[in-house]
Amino acid sequence: MASSLASPSPVLKKPVKLACIQLAAGSDKQANLEHARSKVLEAAQAGAGIIVLPECFNSPYGCDFFPRYAETLLPSPPPRDQSPSFHALSAMAAEAGAYLVGGSIPERDPQVPDRYYNTSLTFDRRGRLLATHRKVHLFDIDIPGKITFRESDVLSPGNKVTVVDLPDYGRIGVAICYDVRFPELAAIAARKGCFALVYPGAFNLTTGPMHWKLLAQGRAVDNQVYVALCSPARDVSGPYHAWGHSMIVDPLAEVVVEAEEKEAIVSWGLDNGKIEEVRRNIPLTTQRRFDVYPDVSQGDVKFTEEGLP
Amino acid sequence: MASSLASPSPVLKKPVKLACIQLAAGSDKQANLEHARSKVLEAAQAGAGIIVLPECFNSPYGCDFFPRYAETLLPSPPPRDQSPSFHALSAMAAEAGAYLVGGSIPERDPQVPDRYYNTSLTFDRRGRLLATHRKVHLFDIDIPGKITFRESDVLSPGNKVTVVDLPDYGRIGVAICYDVRFPELAAIAARKGCFALVYPGAFNLTTGPMHWKLLAQGRAVDNQVYVALCSPARDVSGPYHAWGHSMIVDPLAEVVVEAEEKEAIVSWGLDNGKIEEVRRNIPLTTQRRFDVYPDVSQGDVKFTEEGLP
Repeated sequence: MASSLASPSPVLKKPVKLACIQLAAGSDKQANLEHARSKVLEAAQAGAGIIVLPECFNSPYGCDFFPRYAETLLPSPPPRDQSPSFHALSAMAAEAGAYLVGGSIPERDPQVPDRYYNTSLTFDRRGRLLATHRKVHLFDIDIPGKITFRESDVLSPGNKVTVVDLPDYGRIGVAICYDVRFPELAAIAARKGCFALVYPGAFNLTTGPMHWKLLAQGRAVDNQVYVALCSPARDVSGPYHAWGHSMIVDPLAEVVVEAEEKEAIVSWGLDNGKIEEVRRNIPLTTQRRFDVYPDVSQGDVKFTEEGLP
Repeated sequence: MASSLASPSPVLKKPVKLACIQLAAGSDKQANLEHARSKVLEAAQAGAGIIVLPECFNSPYGCDFFPRYAETLLPSPPPRDQSPSFHALSAMAAEAGAYLVGGSIPERDPQVPDRYYNTSLTFDRRGRLLATHRKVHLFDIDIPGKITFRESDVLSPGNKVTVVDLPDYGRIGVAICYDVRFPELAAIAARKGCFALVYPGAFNLTTGPMHWKLLAQGRAVDNQVYVALCSPARDVSGPYHAWGHSMIVDPLAEVVVEAEEKEAIVSWGLDNGKIEEVRRNIPLTTQRRFDVYPDVSQGDVKFTEEGLP
């Protein structure tokens, strides 16, 4: 894909309503999938053309749960009994008639025992898989007395930047949660012509209030694109307390819509005119000094990963 | 300098108080220099080891003013009558016994008629020039009905990333105002071992409330360094209304001190322990995926500019 990634104009072909579903998920996978379906249909009925689910929407979030909830996605498409979540997502995208960034699910590597990924699947309006993103930066943090988490104890990382072409609208960048802390993914996706950066994510009650909104706005202000962060609803009875606060930020870095911590759907109409206006007013896109420093998007960037659709 | 820029450890050798002087400047250059001196001495007497002045601290800010207030800085050191501001800054750094990031002043190119720069001079505790930064990204924006400004009508840009070694403390990155919108300068400086990024700047009443604080925090959260933004005080009787709100942001992206719009000195004690704690808790510095995307700081970066001390 890299070679064909000249930035299109317009970056967003026509207006589209993007919805983030701040889903309340529990420990029953089948119930989570059915609940996700009802919310995706609700968002579509309200006019959303692009719908986003949260990180680990089909399971509790935690290293203990990843292996238990993991599904085998390769070779793709996987048989129905190997990946009920793949087929549920495909079906709900088709039923909704909307593009679906299917949050993320724990993925089991069929070739290597005990190898797992945190994986996001994006489907088109007819339920066909468009792209797979495995979380590139694993969530390993240790803030003593507040939060310690080591995804890398159980998960393996993905190895590419994910730019997805939605034929009706244009390109989006998809990455997962902790990936948002690494500005290269955002800069590369934006410079390759994405109109929006979409992050299913589940920040916690320590880093959420500190950095969730700041990172969303920071990626928007530097790249002059829409940014959507989609969190699970907070479940204080569950093992991980998500920050919630799913939000959409516009290309001027204004938070245009934001959920609280409970289950909610937040949506916003994305418009190419807004992107163009911001880039005309503050013309970063033509002012960068690639004679003084390199353009990270023109370097050796991995846009594909062997065997991954 | 590039070849010797392995990141030092610790990045900050010992604690230091950094002060931003939100100076009220007027149209009388000599009065501005004298006033700056009194404030620099005040900051030093309060214990600051690094003192920052704002952008265009010796003149009003505006394209009409740059040529009128410009001074010739080359060859360096310039004769006293060619650059009263250079000598005033050198003298106040020595008198204060502090490192001084001398905001910025309009510079005239001695070799090319009608060529000007927006230039920051950094001096050591004995008044010796350590580094020169010419604003790399010129402020050309057009938000109809709100603010239109074209520095490039009058100014020429600098052509390098500026990393300054302060022998007592370690390295800082210096850039000017609109430069803060370009994350590469910050990422490169931080990855080359800077403990702080220092931006004399003069945002306005449109972009100030939108982006000033966000950009300061954004550079801090991505790079886990201190960030200092130093604005002139707001003068509503003058030709340009600066946002003010000089601030220091810590490596966790918390705004630890912030001025309002009036003249003020804001200062904060910088500590290597804080940098290390943040990087240990959220270990971005070891988690970046330079196998997936390039490291901008390892590419072809210009750290020097011919003829510029």
